[in-house]
Amino acid sequence: MCAPEQSADDGTVTNSKWVLKARPQGIFDPKKDVAFKTESISNTDLADDEMLVESFMLSGDAFIRTMMDEEAYHGALSLGDTLPAIGYGKVVAAGPKSCHKVGTVVSGMIGAQTYAKIKSGGAFRHITFPFMTPTASLGLMGLTTGLTAYTGVFYVSRRPRKGETVVVTGAAGAVGSVAAQLAKATGARVVGVAGGPKKCQYLVEELKLDGAIDYKNSEKTLEEQITATCPDGIDFIYDNVGGSILDRLLSKINSNGRVVICGAISQYSGNLNKGKVEGPSNYLKLAEVGAEMKGFNVMQYMARVPLALCGMFYYFIRGKVRMTEHIEVGIQSFPHALAKMFSGGSNGHIGKMLVKVRSNLPK
Amino acid sequence: MCAPEQSADDGTVTNSKWVLKARPQGIFDPKKDVAFKTESISNTDLADDEMLVESFMLSGDAFIRTMMDEEAYHGALSLGDTLPAIGYGKVVAAGPKSCHKVGTVVSGMIGAQTYAKIKSGGAFRHITFPFMTPTASLGLMGLTTGLTAYTGVFYVSRRPRKGETVVVTGAAGAVGSVAAQLAKATGARVVGVAGGPKKCQYLVEELKLDGAIDYKNSEKTLEEQITATCPDGIDFIYDNVGGSILDRLLSKINSNGRVVICGAISQYSGNLNKGKVEGPSNYLKLAEVGAEMKGFNVMQYMARVPLALCGMFYYFIRGKVRMTEHIEVGIQSFPHALAKMFSGGSNGHIGKMLVKVRSNLPK
Repeated sequence: MCAPEQSADDGTVTNSKWVLKARPQGIFDPKKDVAFKTESISNTDLADDEMLVESFMLSGDAFIRTMMDEEAYHGALSLGDTLPAIGYGKVVAAGPKSCHKVGTVVSGMIGAQTYAKIKSGGAFRHITFPFMTPTASLGLMGLTTGLTAYTGVFYVSRRPRKGETVVVTGAAGAVGSVAAQLAKATGARVVGVAGGPKKCQYLVEELKLDGAIDYKNSEKTLEEQITATCPDGIDFIYDNVGGSILDRLLSKINSNGRVVICGAISQYSGNLNKGKVEGPSNYLKLAEVGAEMKGFNVMQYMARVPLALCGMFYYFIRGKVRMTEHIEVGIQSFPHALAKMFSGGSNGHIGKMLVKVRSNLPK
Repeated sequence: MCAPEQSADDGTVTNSKWVLKARPQGIFDPKKDVAFKTESISNTDLADDEMLVESFMLSGDAFIRTMMDEEAYHGALSLGDTLPAIGYGKVVAAGPKSCHKVGTVVSGMIGAQTYAKIKSGGAFRHITFPFMTPTASLGLMGLTTGLTAYTGVFYVSRRPRKGETVVVTGAAGAVGSVAAQLAKATGARVVGVAGGPKKCQYLVEELKLDGAIDYKNSEKTLEEQITATCPDGIDFIYDNVGGSILDRLLSKINSNGRVVICGAISQYSGNLNKGKVEGPSNYLKLAEVGAEMKGFNVMQYMARVPLALCGMFYYFIRGKVRMTEHIEVGIQSFPHALAKMFSGGSNGHIGKMLVKVRSNLPK
């Protein structure tokens, strides 16, 4: 299935990678927008501080889509660049000044490829956590995922309180599902927004949320579902989605409400960077009721990461938070996994999207 | 000029008033949207706790426009209702349970009329301030004006600091001009946005702001003017205007920036309440840089009004803040004064819009 990989012992490996072929026009199209390439990498190509990492597991993250645009929110890829991806893998060769030895498993920006030639300072030793899956560093304890959820719930604005109503959008996704569980752990009523009955069932039955809003529901409008699930209005919105869902939620925001903007996946497929982002037309509600909207990126809260890790571990041990993982297998599947992640709704996945690079590698 | 007014001595007065004839379609049109009416009011019409107030001075406020819409932000007028207006005037008759005596000058929601029959508890004794104009209670020290500016600069979010760049929109208006001066008093660099060279000259020469952006300038784009006046980006936006100006400013917001939403006068002429408000499409910049947008209404900060009055008086005495007044004369002029206020740009007024109800009345 995979291109035959040679051992690094002879000093040369064959790297299979996904590169950006064309900037997506709107929705990401794996057939048009990316190309699969192979290349040989020799140990002799490594600079003194570089290392060659055999990729084990890659994380599907929304920022990958934004980087495909020309004027990107997170820094743009050039055409021909390897698709970015956070992941972990084993060091199979290392320059003399590498800070990691051969055999070490490291985490970092590995990219959508089977072998990554990266600066050793750009990666850190892969961390596993007791009682958690080996992939926890990409999911529940990962910077772009669990820690992003934790930061948005606890650090960005006044945290949710008992008796308050919290709404989380993209609640069946990796960040959203953790944010929803953490909000629930504060004692607040939590309602999740997701697309399709399967995801909504997951929110109520698996995550034990107090309600679910199905934005794909053709029988009940968003308005009706919001009124039904949030009879006392909304005190805290954790928004991953933007667009019309954010707008409808804003219309129900309570006095002293908080809106935490983590992302806007509904706007990433082309609107972003073209000046076409659908702004929240109900933003004046903020003035009417005295509410705030605060944006963040987890990188702005790096100093609090150790505390967030402890907090997350505490909630995990108490059974308050867990991560559902959706694992696709094979480097070939990477673009399709991304497309599934971006498509959302009933065609989407639940929880954390991971790509295990080769079927015969450790999880 | 005015309809002949009778003395209240004989127990009857003729009230001349402006009523809502039709809900404005977009921009407020005095010819189509309001009607001038007269009516007789007799002392015997007064309930025990009511009083009859002869109107002296009325304040032009943006909320009047929003109340003309059906589903209004500040509570809707019905067709035929007297246009609302805050103002002050003399009690000429009072029911036995009125808390104000005949002869007292009171402030309150008098409405766009020459005589107001109002509940005595709905008004308070008119306050004048030493060294200030008699109209200060409607302007610099008025709830909807100076105190709104003070609240937005000092109470809503982290106040501006020395070395920061503040941008105030609608800066030649009543609220904006005070907000800009208060921001300047904190030591920040302050740039004002207004329409037309006359207003921009006022901002730089009279208010001593550090820069002015003319949104009507046909030679230089908003983008170019923002870059020229805010070379280090923007730390604090005091927004009265909304729409595309807010959007362009947001694109330059700095890390830890604050956006205080006081109003959105660009959206009041029809967009508001019809779900057509132009939301800030650059709101994702909040997440990118970690900034916040907070809305307010001065009514949410009533407990801090006494402190704000002291603060404003302190800045006034030190020569840091003052109010330019634009006074139109005669109850007939009220709708035209409003239209001038809403039109903005080069056709608009500078500072506080007031209507002196009759030329022979005390200022």
